[in-house]
Amino acid sequence: MNPERLKMSAESLPIDISFLEKKRHEVDKLLDKYLPSAEAYPDRLHKAMRYSVLAGGKRVRPILAMTAYEAFGGNDPQIINPVACALEFVHTYSLIHDDLPCMDDDDLRRGQPTLHRRFDEATAVLAGDALHVLAFQMAARSGSTRVVQELAEAIGTYGMLGGQMADVEAEGKHNTLEQIQFIHTHKTGALIKASIRMGAILAGVDEGSLRKLSHYGEKIGLAFQIIDDLLDIQGEVRKMGKPSGSDCRNQKATYPGTVGLERARKDAGQLIDEAIMISREFNAKGEYFALIARFVGQREN
Amino acid sequence: MNPERLKMSAESLPIDISFLEKKRHEVDKLLDKYLPSAEAYPDRLHKAMRYSVLAGGKRVRPILAMTAYEAFGGNDPQIINPVACALEFVHTYSLIHDDLPCMDDDDLRRGQPTLHRRFDEATAVLAGDALHVLAFQMAARSGSTRVVQELAEAIGTYGMLGGQMADVEAEGKHNTLEQIQFIHTHKTGALIKASIRMGAILAGVDEGSLRKLSHYGEKIGLAFQIIDDLLDIQGEVRKMGKPSGSDCRNQKATYPGTVGLERARKDAGQLIDEAIMISREFNAKGEYFALIARFVGQREN
Repeated sequence: MNPERLKMSAESLPIDISFLEKKRHEVDKLLDKYLPSAEAYPDRLHKAMRYSVLAGGKRVRPILAMTAYEAFGGNDPQIINPVACALEFVHTYSLIHDDLPCMDDDDLRRGQPTLHRRFDEATAVLAGDALHVLAFQMAARSGSTRVVQELAEAIGTYGMLGGQMADVEAEGKHNTLEQIQFIHTHKTGALIKASIRMGAILAGVDEGSLRKLSHYGEKIGLAFQIIDDLLDIQGEVRKMGKPSGSDCRNQKATYPGTVGLERARKDAGQLIDEAIMISREFNAKGEYFALIARFVGQREN
Repeated sequence: MNPERLKMSAESLPIDISFLEKKRHEVDKLLDKYLPSAEAYPDRLHKAMRYSVLAGGKRVRPILAMTAYEAFGGNDPQIINPVACALEFVHTYSLIHDDLPCMDDDDLRRGQPTLHRRFDEATAVLAGDALHVLAFQMAARSGSTRVVQELAEAIGTYGMLGGQMADVEAEGKHNTLEQIQFIHTHKTGALIKASIRMGAILAGVDEGSLRKLSHYGEKIGLAFQIIDDLLDIQGEVRKMGKPSGSDCRNQKATYPGTVGLERARKDAGQLIDEAIMISREFNAKGEYFALIARFVGQREN
């Protein structure tokens, strides 16, 4: 699709993405480092984990955690790096289980066969489980049980898994905007919000700023998923790396499917604008948050 | 089967199981308390979690953690109780995913339909995931990231999941005793050993005792799985709550399948004897560990 069509009302100044590119490469290297070696037994399982995590991705969650940590004065990579990678491991585990035949039954992910297609279903179930537990191992390296609990709450039944269950239940039904918002804020939003919170907590953020950051996280989390839905409907296989319109084929509950394309674009734009407004309250610290919000608003895949 | 046939060479004094019964009831109550309410949304997912966890079980892992904690002077239920339940949540999650059609494809568990039979496959995948994350949420309540890491290592790819992957790969092949021992010490043994270690660590055990306890855990962990295999081959549906001989049907790698019934019985008995010997090194403290070892050696389901 033409990226212009997604710019919506969000500020469309050209954004300097070199900061994001640099962070993304840093995260890619760290993920490779923290993943078990493909040679170590059980090598089949380790290869499967590496296949899914290293297939690429925007690494939005680790970047958010690192940015929040650094913005609030954190400066120990030994603490933030494993936590940042934990977020990507969780994200990947959720995609692997979501793609399974009994769930979305997807054949492609990021332009490659999904894990159960490339390996087999049993390996995909176990590799998802393995990334799930690796995430907690990494989160615990921070030495903060509060951060472990933040992660667990964000991805538990009152967070991400609740959203996934609601998504499964919503399939093929008529859904209200309220239901769609519940699915999105839980399935995608909770982990995005937690990414920012965990980074900031590790840096020793004050409670007032943490509350503001949480609101920022909620805005970009919901915007992120609405844009995902829009890209899924309108996108091309080449750009998305998955069959366009697969949500439609599965009769999945989507935001644009409920409110229409125009309204969905408008709402996403407004959420991005609101996230940028919150970023400004942090003055210089907020610069990178504003940048990330604009990036989310303008992404093409 | 006749329980006499399992007593092997292990000490066969009548054991006072009232201590274990009392603990088991305590654990059952705690599990009910820590599980999300069946009425809370996503209720389908919460009902599924409760269905599997509350279907019964020996609660060996929580009892081991509590016993180790108390033996080494721990006295704060707020710390040990959530950790003890975390171990049962992990155990149940692993059974749910193990029973899935793409894994063992089992229809019965503890005399009831397996979760994916009673609900559906998608719900079973998500309920397993939900118990996995709930376990880490509970473990983090202890305030000890060391304990969170112990749990993660025990159930990661170098522990339980490594054993599960090896088990999947071993199916239908001829396996050496070494391979079977690898599967058993990882798939079952790692979590049993960790249960004891986590309880003792939370009580502030010294490193020397922790090493001894780990050896004890390794012995009863392996014995536990050999006896499981023996019961599976010889047991009755009524007692086991799953079709007898299902491991055989799936051509699973089993200990008696490799060394024969007599040798398997002898080896399990010897492991129990060795565990009891280690227990004695702890003097009065070791009394309960000896009791648990004897219970493992004489169990009928």
